[in-house]
Amino acid sequence: MSTPFELLTAHACYGGAQRFYKHDSREIGLPMKFSVYLPPKAVLGEKVPALLYLAGLTCTEETFMAKAGAQRLAAELGLALITCDTSPRDANVPGQADAWDFGVGAGFYLNAQQAPWEQNWRMESYIIDELLPMLGRYLPIDMQRLGIFGHSMGGHGALTLALRHPGIFKSVSAFAPIANPSSCAWGQKAFTGYLGSNEAVWAQHDATRLMESQGKAPYPAGILIDQGMADKFLHEKQLLPEAFEAACAKVGQPLVLRQQAGYDHGYYFIQTFMDDHLRHHAQQLGQ
Amino acid sequence: MSTPFELLTAHACYGGAQRFYKHDSREIGLPMKFSVYLPPKAVLGEKVPALLYLAGLTCTEETFMAKAGAQRLAAELGLALITCDTSPRDANVPGQADAWDFGVGAGFYLNAQQAPWEQNWRMESYIIDELLPMLGRYLPIDMQRLGIFGHSMGGHGALTLALRHPGIFKSVSAFAPIANPSSCAWGQKAFTGYLGSNEAVWAQHDATRLMESQGKAPYPAGILIDQGMADKFLHEKQLLPEAFEAACAKVGQPLVLRQQAGYDHGYYFIQTFMDDHLRHHAQQLGQ
Repeated sequence: MSTPFELLTAHACYGGAQRFYKHDSREIGLPMKFSVYLPPKAVLGEKVPALLYLAGLTCTEETFMAKAGAQRLAAELGLALITCDTSPRDANVPGQADAWDFGVGAGFYLNAQQAPWEQNWRMESYIIDELLPMLGRYLPIDMQRLGIFGHSMGGHGALTLALRHPGIFKSVSAFAPIANPSSCAWGQKAFTGYLGSNEAVWAQHDATRLMESQGKAPYPAGILIDQGMADKFLHEKQLLPEAFEAACAKVGQPLVLRQQAGYDHGYYFIQTFMDDHLRHHAQQLGQ
Repeated sequence: MSTPFELLTAHACYGGAQRFYKHDSREIGLPMKFSVYLPPKAVLGEKVPALLYLAGLTCTEETFMAKAGAQRLAAELGLALITCDTSPRDANVPGQADAWDFGVGAGFYLNAQQAPWEQNWRMESYIIDELLPMLGRYLPIDMQRLGIFGHSMGGHGALTLALRHPGIFKSVSAFAPIANPSSCAWGQKAFTGYLGSNEAVWAQHDATRLMESQGKAPYPAGILIDQGMADKFLHEKQLLPEAFEAACAKVGQPLVLRQQAGYDHGYYFIQTFMDDHLRHHAQQLGQ
């Protein structure tokens, strides 16, 4: 079958296939890279459930695949893993790479509404309307059994996309998410730049605000969040998991927010609790 | 206790501690970085056996710790993990970074005998006479239960250091080692540059030649090697595991050389078989 994406590299991994791809994205208007891990049974052609992982500031589609140690248990559980990049890369917007927390590597998984970003910075439409449907069509992935998770900015992405598209994702988790971006410096900078100054618009992309606006628990089977207690960004009030926890309590959303003593914000933290997240998703996806 | 090395960063990981250090190396004559993973019981003060991992061309002390997925089982088995850099970094030798397979990132774990390398490129003395004794003195590591393993150039390093220093290492394994450097392009380039043109000197740093010169099996409990069969460097005759296998057969050295169909030369290959290597060492180290 001819595909609208190009295979860049492929690596055998735990009996499955770790693949890196590139394609010309309609939504972004530029080439985009993504990666897929297929467990052994999917390599043999069986349709499997999949987890979309959204990475944090400065990361790429490779970060999770190289550093999170997820493939071993994903192979065993029969889960595919999907990652995309964290922003457009080749837009040539003036100043796009001047900051590590805005522009390149910092797409915040939303569609920008402000110039000069609104043409290419369309990560939400890219993921929901283009990447996932394309993968469902061309790879042995069961799009009826899709989970989403992510880290930091990608934890924000996982929570907000799950809340904005509840029909698409059946399970949700996050590592140290930016849980209330309207109220932290990273989020305020990104939302002002991408969305403008109207805080009502911000609320549509803020996990805590979105949860508060639900009438009832949107994920009755529960959301899992791990937060390291030695995470400097937690102490700098960039993450605000307590705000999200309060919002969940308000609408009756079951949430397991685990405070992990001694752990920081990086991939040594993420890999430590990866198995728990994979099992959380596998259980909810019927694996 | 005051230590002769400086802690750069520390990360909780699987209940243990992932630490990156720097020190002024006497043997290298320059600052060197290294990394140690201590399993939970060592963090609590118990002395544990350790595995020294030697990385391949272009890698650093961080590569294995970030990409190999070894900490999970090392934590469970109670094994410390040690990595060092692959060469001096700050020597300012003219042309030191001109090639990816010689000079910086390509120390080949030997002491150079040729100018301008012989002053700083002393990785063998650095590891054996300085780094390991220092760690044994200042960290909860049992230097009587030390194993060695590595990848590619680091597989060469693991096999040759194990054969040259059999009293120090009690267990040995390798991923896709450069097993007969005297007979491959990488090895011939490095040996000529670091050791000169005398092939009798080369033989002292060639795992196949060293094994042939043993009167009997130096590691009667066996050596484990994994080799991917889709490894392009295998097909380019850079690795030559069959030469090492023949040398082992000649002296009666038990060797398990596993040919892994479909696997390439990278860390997706290494992580897939990491657990087997950790268990191989743990068993021989009495863990």
